Amino acid sequence: MEARYSIVFYFLMLLALSSAFAFPSKKQYKPCKHLVLYFHDIIYNGKNAGNATSAIVAAPDGANLTILAGQFHFGNVAVFDDPITLDNNLHSKPVGRAQGLYIYDTKNTFTSWLGFTFVLNSTDHQGTINFFGVDLIMVKSRDISVVGGTGNLFMHHGIATIMTDAFEGEVYFRLCVDIKFYECW
Amino acid sequence: MEARYSIVFYFLMLLALSSAFAFPSKKQYKPCKHLVLYFHDIIYNGKNAGNATSAIVAAPDGANLTILAGQFHFGNVAVFDDPITLDNNLHSKPVGRAQGLYIYDTKNTFTSWLGFTFVLNSTDHQGTINFFGVDLIMVKSRDISVVGGTGNLFMHHGIATIMTDAFEGEVYFRLCVDIKFYECW
Amino acid sequence: MEARYSIVFYFLMLLALSSAFAFPSKKQYKPCKHLVLYFHDIIYNGKNAGNATSAIVAAPDGANLTILAGQFHFGNVAVFDDPITLDNNLHSKPVGRAQGLYIYDTKNTFTSWLGFTFVLNSTDHQGTINFFGVDLIMVKSRDISVVGGTGNLFMHHGIATIMTDAFEGEVYFRLCVDIKFYECW
Repeated sequence: MEARYSIVFYFLMLLALSSAFAFPSKKQYKPCKHLVLYFHDIIYNGKNAGNATSAIVAAPDGANLTILAGQFHFGNVAVFDDPITLDNNLHSKPVGRAQGLYIYDTKNTFTSWLGFTFVLNSTDHQGTINFFGVDLIMVKSRDISVVGGTGNLFMHHGIATIMTDAFEGEVYFRLCVDIKFYECW
Repeated sequence: MEARYSIVFYFLMLLALSSAFAFPSKKQYKPCKHLVLYFHDIIYNGKNAGNATSAIVAAPDGANLTILAGQFHFGNVAVFDDPITLDNNLHSKPVGRAQGLYIYDTKNTFTSWLGFTFVLNSTDHQGTINFFGVDLIMVKSRDISVVGGTGNLFMHHGIATIMTDAFEGEVYFRLCVDIKFYECW
Repeated sequence: MEARYSIVFYFLMLLALSSAFAFPSKKQYKPCKHLVLYFHDIIYNGKNAGNATSAIVAAPDGANLTILAGQFHFGNVAVFDDPITLDNNLHSKPVGRAQGLYIYDTKNTFTSWLGFTFVLNSTDHQGTINFFGVDLIMVKSRDISVVGGTGNLFMHHGIATIMTDAFEGEVYFRLCVDIKFYECW
């Protein structure tokens, strides 16, 4: 069952990577600030307590907390504290932490609902960015809302375009987050 | 116990339907865009796997995942992927999906905390709308925040007025969402 | 194990209370509205059903719902319905309820991710305020986003500075929330 889903997943993944944007943002507006960051998620599977950066904390009836549920993981809630890096290397020096939750929320495809915060602590940025929206995982690039910022990103609003930069079975994924602020203060 | 709550619920429901607005929005502002949409929720109860559009994924100590908890369901977290329609008919062609979570969060009345997204995919709208707020279920009409939009609702902000359009025991509910955007781009 | 964490916690707490701000907001902007409110959280521990205002509803693998998990409670999700007061007295007349969820989301310090709403019902304020962000618990004062308001706080946006005003073991905490609106309508 799980194996079949995985095969379907990889197939759709390839398809998605060659497809066009789902909901293109209007192009006429120019961001007042622009950041590209990566974050890295290693989910706890019962054996990787040392490395895991996220954990399943809720699951639908009949499922457990160390194996993602069937039906495209519908109903799984994961809490994460993932390192943020400037490039796509998991081992690069983190510039902050991505913290919050993701929820698999569709029965017939991979989709997750995201509520999370970037806590940035680098020479460039000291502050937080708050994100909210649906991650249409199978779409190459998809937009969520930047609902607020603090610190040196005080009151910033905008759009974040998410791209799956790597995906290794049900162990590791890396997202590229292209953040465009349209309201800067 | 459950039965008693249900009776109280229906009674309060009637009361609510005849009552006035809880927190009326200021009337002097005119929306720059206006949408009225419905969404339909069928909660999983252990027997309706085929039809259910939502599932209880977390519950307080002592409760389970196929029966909503006592004490006004306090502590129940449900994940949903509900069809959105233009009218109040569950069987109308969906124009998108409402995805996210609702959390029953009061011990002495029915109230839920909502974090969810409308993923719209129709000829009129290609994009997402992000909602956040408390749903005072027993009040006829109540307001939550529209914290962002993407696609052709890029950077939109506003207020959504929610009304319970139908409620059938603990099996089905339908919400009417009257979305008024006050910041359009 | 739990005891050791508690000692570490109190030590860090003292440290934090004497430290400077984490991410100071820009000082040049003056709020168009300003509110200071307190809310009070009593977590359910299996014995305090009458007084408890919050409950653990999700936990990582191996943990339960009446004791906060080890590793700085990483993965615990709590649903709350807490009284809001104008001063720091739990027994003062509430002016509303703080409703939503907090999620402990770091393995090596105390941090929580917050999504919640103030439902205000007083002579001064009739409406809701929606909050979103990471609460860096060990930092004296930390900022989250105010992502929207309704009622007489219609469409308000801003920043909330959170301070731990009291902390009594794993039974009770009180937060002071200093809300500065920079967009008023």
